[in-house]
Amino acid sequence: MSERTRPPVRSDIAWSNAERIVIRGHDLVDDLLGKVDLGDFGFLELFHRLPDESESTVFNAMLVSLAEHGLTPNALAARLTYLGAPESLQGAVAAGLLGLGTTFVGTIEGTARMLQEAPAQETWRSDQAALQQVATRIAEEFVAARRPVPGIGHPIHKPVDPRAERLFGLARDNGLDDSYERLLRAIQAVAQDRLDRELPINVTGAIGSISTTMGLRWQVSRGLGVMARAVGLVGHILEELDQPIAQTVQYDAEKRAVAHMVEGDSHG
Amino acid sequence: MSERTRPPVRSDIAWSNAERIVIRGHDLVDDLLGKVDLGDFGFLELFHRLPDESESTVFNAMLVSLAEHGLTPNALAARLTYLGAPESLQGAVAAGLLGLGTTFVGTIEGTARMLQEAPAQETWRSDQAALQQVATRIAEEFVAARRPVPGIGHPIHKPVDPRAERLFGLARDNGLDDSYERLLRAIQAVAQDRLDRELPINVTGAIGSISTTMGLRWQVSRGLGVMARAVGLVGHILEELDQPIAQTVQYDAEKRAVAHMVEGDSHG
Amino acid sequence: MSERTRPPVRSDIAWSNAERIVIRGHDLVDDLLGKVDLGDFGFLELFHRLPDESESTVFNAMLVSLAEHGLTPNALAARLTYLGAPESLQGAVAAGLLGLGTTFVGTIEGTARMLQEAPAQETWRSDQAALQQVATRIAEEFVAARRPVPGIGHPIHKPVDPRAERLFGLARDNGLDDSYERLLRAIQAVAQDRLDRELPINVTGAIGSISTTMGLRWQVSRGLGVMARAVGLVGHILEELDQPIAQTVQYDAEKRAVAHMVEGDSHG
Amino acid sequence: MSERTRPPVRSDIAWSNAERIVIRGHDLVDDLLGKVDLGDFGFLELFHRLPDESESTVFNAMLVSLAEHGLTPNALAARLTYLGAPESLQGAVAAGLLGLGTTFVGTIEGTARMLQEAPAQETWRSDQAALQQVATRIAEEFVAARRPVPGIGHPIHKPVDPRAERLFGLARDNGLDDSYERLLRAIQAVAQDRLDRELPINVTGAIGSISTTMGLRWQVSRGLGVMARAVGLVGHILEELDQPIAQTVQYDAEKRAVAHMVEGDSHG
Repeated sequence: MSERTRPPVRSDIAWSNAERIVIRGHDLVDDLLGKVDLGDFGFLELFHRLPDESESTVFNAMLVSLAEHGLTPNALAARLTYLGAPESLQGAVAAGLLGLGTTFVGTIEGTARMLQEAPAQETWRSDQAALQQVATRIAEEFVAARRPVPGIGHPIHKPVDPRAERLFGLARDNGLDDSYERLLRAIQAVAQDRLDRELPINVTGAIGSISTTMGLRWQVSRGLGVMARAVGLVGHILEELDQPIAQTVQYDAEKRAVAHMVEGDSHG
Repeated sequence: MSERTRPPVRSDIAWSNAERIVIRGHDLVDDLLGKVDLGDFGFLELFHRLPDESESTVFNAMLVSLAEHGLTPNALAARLTYLGAPESLQGAVAAGLLGLGTTFVGTIEGTARMLQEAPAQETWRSDQAALQQVATRIAEEFVAARRPVPGIGHPIHKPVDPRAERLFGLARDNGLDDSYERLLRAIQAVAQDRLDRELPINVTGAIGSISTTMGLRWQVSRGLGVMARAVGLVGHILEELDQPIAQTVQYDAEKRAVAHMVEGDSHG
Repeated sequence: MSERTRPPVRSDIAWSNAERIVIRGHDLVDDLLGKVDLGDFGFLELFHRLPDESESTVFNAMLVSLAEHGLTPNALAARLTYLGAPESLQGAVAAGLLGLGTTFVGTIEGTARMLQEAPAQETWRSDQAALQQVATRIAEEFVAARRPVPGIGHPIHKPVDPRAERLFGLARDNGLDDSYERLLRAIQAVAQDRLDRELPINVTGAIGSISTTMGLRWQVSRGLGVMARAVGLVGHILEELDQPIAQTVQYDAEKRAVAHMVEGDSHG
Repeated sequence: MSERTRPPVRSDIAWSNAERIVIRGHDLVDDLLGKVDLGDFGFLELFHRLPDESESTVFNAMLVSLAEHGLTPNALAARLTYLGAPESLQGAVAAGLLGLGTTFVGTIEGTARMLQEAPAQETWRSDQAALQQVATRIAEEFVAARRPVPGIGHPIHKPVDPRAERLFGLARDNGLDDSYERLLRAIQAVAQDRLDRELPINVTGAIGSISTTMGLRWQVSRGLGVMARAVGLVGHILEELDQPIAQTVQYDAEKRAVAHMVEGDSHG
């Protein structure tokens, strides 16, 4: 990048002086503390305005649906990290968040991208035949490339992922446009037909769809999972502090993993 | 640790089957989605029950007060990381969170620990002279050891940190016991006197105090900052995507930092 | 994954008992300490055997070429993180490593993948016309897709990246096959011609090529950058401890970034 | 920090222009590539000069002794992270490094600090009685405070940690002063006597001692572990790619951890 084209250093998020902290135009102390919840604040970060009540309900529900899923790989990574560095709770949570990649929350991003790259001419929003055509083309592209269609399929939650259905219901009940939901369901139907398998729309699919309706760019939709899971991971660290399991898990895994070598040696 | 004393692998946070996800006894789909916000969910993670309305207000306010403070060192670290690895939003946020150590949110922990290690016999809660005595002993220990008293002092927000006052006000208005607030203010007064300096109770001091009142162990109080700042950092990544500044900041810093060597060379 | 197909927990890297630690068949104390250097140990990790002298020279040179490049975005991220969490040197280095993504060391991976996905039938290794054909097809695919050809181009080091030329020279001098170097140079020539621009093979291109010759799978070639830069980042933390700059960089960036808002306020 | 006292932005590590990269005064291409190994480069980062042959042997041996110890908690955390984010090898390695805290490599730091804070008047270096006195005072302070003496004790490697003995032997054979080794051994003897337990000097104790002799400040001695383990963790990611175990470990841990709840439900 040449000196000329280098962008200026400018941020519009927040400023402060001795008396005030102002975030996206809202005085933190007078307008936000005691008045908005953490999810609403996340909405403010992403949409640069506070949500109305309906938006708050749906946005918080998306976050809450992602915050906790028990002893997942990332919860386990966080706990193992805490075992080695109990002085750095932030490091343990960071380790857990680092696993929120393409395998898990990346599917929010994949769904959102697939929907956001659907044809710009919007006839499919009002014309069922056009929607069917768009959905078929999208689904068949993934199938032809032998790539999984993002946002559908789940190893456990089938034939439906109850979280997805609940989120779509909340979105509709709160007045959000359902075009992307309909498009995703049409894609799902084609994919199920072509692959001859049960492929429920999963929770990340629903979130990719609803966040697209809300106007969130796919490039940061993974951030919803990051915001939410940070909350859940702190809970895991607290449980690890009270009721530690990381050392036992590690000890058992190690013993099992190297048994073939240690035994070899003990007979050598 | 011998085999015998190794603790069992057990987690009480969540379980799921094909139809349900249950978190601390609450059905995710039926009881939580659409009904609780992300801050309430954080309360559930830390206290194993949902907050009532007052607790929700105060707990969310603590989180919101920590979520965003503009172009801080950790926001900058997150943006610089995103510059190199835009495919890993989670890595950029993790990099930002890693800076939430002793210098910044660690003071929540320090305050909470100081208060939680105050004498167990609770006469100071009801007896002003006892409180004064306890506060004096605590403050003088820090002063004697030339260690900063945690939770007081701020480079910019003085004579008062408006966030701290607002949080204490919310806590009182919502019926929380104010013993720890009174103890912290008494410690502050002694410290200001001994050090002859203006040392406002800062936002992390107020949070260390209020979270102690709520029953949060000091070992995880840093987690409040981690939960909250994860939300803010996603906002910084979104702004970096739309309006990038990391490369300019880095370029300027590097140019300035190595000028003495490059010039030396160019004359060589 | 069904219970049946789940792979066993097995690791072949290392085992230990009270007297010995054995790594890939080598006794750590008797065979490795004092006999191999850290780069050789990295070779052992990746190739499951120790390098001969030639391999050691080339492999270490690749690592050393990546270890340090001054005040890069990742060095700056590490220093900013250390400012907030000086108790966690590991967190600061981790923050720095998190920036080693697609933008920077990811190009090692891109180059390695491009070369490793070149036609399996190996006539191009001995037949100049076949090589030209393969190179043309590869380069034109990238150009047609408007994707940058990995491993070529550099904003500063041109017309040649001296590190790349040195690494290729060392590889040849140490008896490594030069087929992939020739293929990459042919790809470069086509790309320069089609794009009408100077596009030197850069250091990550050379490493992607040489590591492919050595037999390293592209999926982990980014690991060479991670191994190396961890070493350099510790050096930056040491300098930050002795001669801190992070706070000044942050302060200047923040002041500049929010000036338009703070001014607005001061006139309000 | 006031504007006046804010330190200048200056780095002395490296600079580059189109033709050259110069690191601590050495031309990367001409003086380092093909001539120094990765461990030597680490020495250059920490001591601002290249090691002589003896220093290179000892320094590399310290790093190699820390690089790999099988399926440790941090190796497991790295693999679990890779499971979720296979696109970010750097994230998986970073997650692993985040566990290098006080529990494990922090003991290097503890040992180094204990030795570096020993009395500055150096009679103990030449006077056996003074050494005994200093050692007794240090050991008894830890014992009185019920804090573990850093650098001694090991759950598996006893009565001696063979790595520690080998490292001390290499240090002596390569002409390093052995004052700190003697001081640490005297501390160990007192601690064993007072605590009536076998407490071998462990590998991190030896490294804390030798790195102190070399002149490394305790604040960054943890960095030796970080440099080294980054190398080992890349090896674990490669094995995870070829022979994955993270999912099985997680699945087994989760099943075991939540069995008490799921069973409860199935009878409900």
